Amino acid sequence: MPREQQQREEAPPGYVPPMSPEEVAAVEALLGYEFKDKSLVGDALTHGSFYLPYRSGDSTYERLEYLGDGVLTCLVSREVFLTYPDLPPGPLTRLRAANVDKEKLARIAVDHGIHRFLRHKAPKLEEQIADFVKELGQYEYHSNGLLDAPKALSDIVESLIGAIYVDSKYNQELVWQVFRNLADPLISLETLGKHPVSELLEFGQKTGRTVDISKDGWVKDTKVDVFVDGVLVASATYAQKKEIASNRAAKAALDKLKEMSGQSDVQSAPAEAPEPLDELDHSGALELQ
Amino acid sequence: MPREQQQREEAPPGYVPPMSPEEVAAVEALLGYEFKDKSLVGDALTHGSFYLPYRSGDSTYERLEYLGDGVLTCLVSREVFLTYPDLPPGPLTRLRAANVDKEKLARIAVDHGIHRFLRHKAPKLEEQIADFVKELGQYEYHSNGLLDAPKALSDIVESLIGAIYVDSKYNQELVWQVFRNLADPLISLETLGKHPVSELLEFGQKTGRTVDISKDGWVKDTKVDVFVDGVLVASATYAQKKEIASNRAAKAALDKLKEMSGQSDVQSAPAEAPEPLDELDHSGALELQ
Repeated sequence: MPREQQQREEAPPGYVPPMSPEEVAAVEALLGYEFKDKSLVGDALTHGSFYLPYRSGDSTYERLEYLGDGVLTCLVSREVFLTYPDLPPGPLTRLRAANVDKEKLARIAVDHGIHRFLRHKAPKLEEQIADFVKELGQYEYHSNGLLDAPKALSDIVESLIGAIYVDSKYNQELVWQVFRNLADPLISLETLGKHPVSELLEFGQKTGRTVDISKDGWVKDTKVDVFVDGVLVASATYAQKKEIASNRAAKAALDKLKEMSGQSDVQSAPAEAPEPLDELDHSGALELQ
Repeated sequence: MPREQQQREEAPPGYVPPMSPEEVAAVEALLGYEFKDKSLVGDALTHGSFYLPYRSGDSTYERLEYLGDGVLTCLVSREVFLTYPDLPPGPLTRLRAANVDKEKLARIAVDHGIHRFLRHKAPKLEEQIADFVKELGQYEYHSNGLLDAPKALSDIVESLIGAIYVDSKYNQELVWQVFRNLADPLISLETLGKHPVSELLEFGQKTGRTVDISKDGWVKDTKVDVFVDGVLVASATYAQKKEIASNRAAKAALDKLKEMSGQSDVQSAPAEAPEPLDELDHSGALELQ
């Protein structure tokens, strides 16, 4: 891809049209923020592919995305720190990660219609976005690894946040106001979910059963199988990413196991006394649901 | 470890002594910041082990460290973003990572004598700190993977930064002033180094030689061997971490190869025209030297 970019020629002057004042105003309305430097809006919404067949210029969202990622890390850290005065660092870190993760940010883009202003020329990306928009409604807060969120959508939320940070002369409180509104409701300890693979492996540990998530078939037919005590319980296929296929197979297996056991077996975890939070620090898995 | 903590009892009231006003003042002088809430200084410098044999209380540095990590990510992102107006996100991200990494922050703690105020009861940690302090002088900016920096030292720099962020009512400019002074000189594109393992693998690719970094011996005798075209060129042992052993072995191999080739072979990389920066985005390796 970089090699390809290098072979491309510089675009003729004026090749990349700025966003129209109407479009800029529409984006500002969605964000609830009026830019002093309107050119930042176009920069924040321009994907590298937009320049095709020419080399991508300076005005892509990448640098602003990097900056926005930094600011969001800080502000979400603070929010979680203040909201949970007694929470140990493990769950704090997981809550922070969940609120700035790819799916959460891509969801913000779609919920507010920001994705319609992404400037690109990547037909495959268009399809991915359409698929994501279609499937999003099935999950209230987060799919926890079942949806394949297009990175470009989370990127533009970060780049717009980075653009506001620059435009406001690094006013973090203003940035937070904008993000807080867009991200509402933030993922809380109560809505923070578990990835199905983690949940399934925990189920195996707790019940003493052997859980095997077999990815051997993925390369051949994009299929992941779940065996419990050697018996095939569920499968899922997903061609684009092995991880998504694994999570979907694990979810299908959990649903099947719940059904088989009349819900007593698998759902026993949440009903138990919650584990002390500092035990969770070392698991790396998302907690609660 | 968490289990162990749970078996411990609550400390008797007053068991954990606050830091003396003299100590607090000394730390404030080192930081160049005067705290309104002096108790934050003690919190930021208290390791969990300090409470032994009792359960570690709320007043450890962990939550402040989490917050400080968030603020530093933001502020270093911004600094690098503004210092290099044309740099693509790959090198931006590597520069950010290098300036908030474990060794860089632990170096800050030692350079300013902050490490002397860490409150802990972990004899092994004391040894690790002593070893680190002894070896630090050999590397001007960063060892790039040759030193095993004690995490507790980078932790307390982050926790003190988090404490200042809280104490100043989230004044990021003030936090930046303090950190900028402590961290001087920041790692720049010019001083950003390469990990020896990455450098050695690149050497192999560029010269068409087969480089094999064999870690098989590490478990047995904590030794990593480097073979070039099947010939043993160098070894290194390091019992605590395989990664450090690998980097040291790679460094020894690079030195040997430079010596053998009269420096022409290995040093050819920096002499060549620099690779375009956007090619570096995908390598994951640290750049330049």
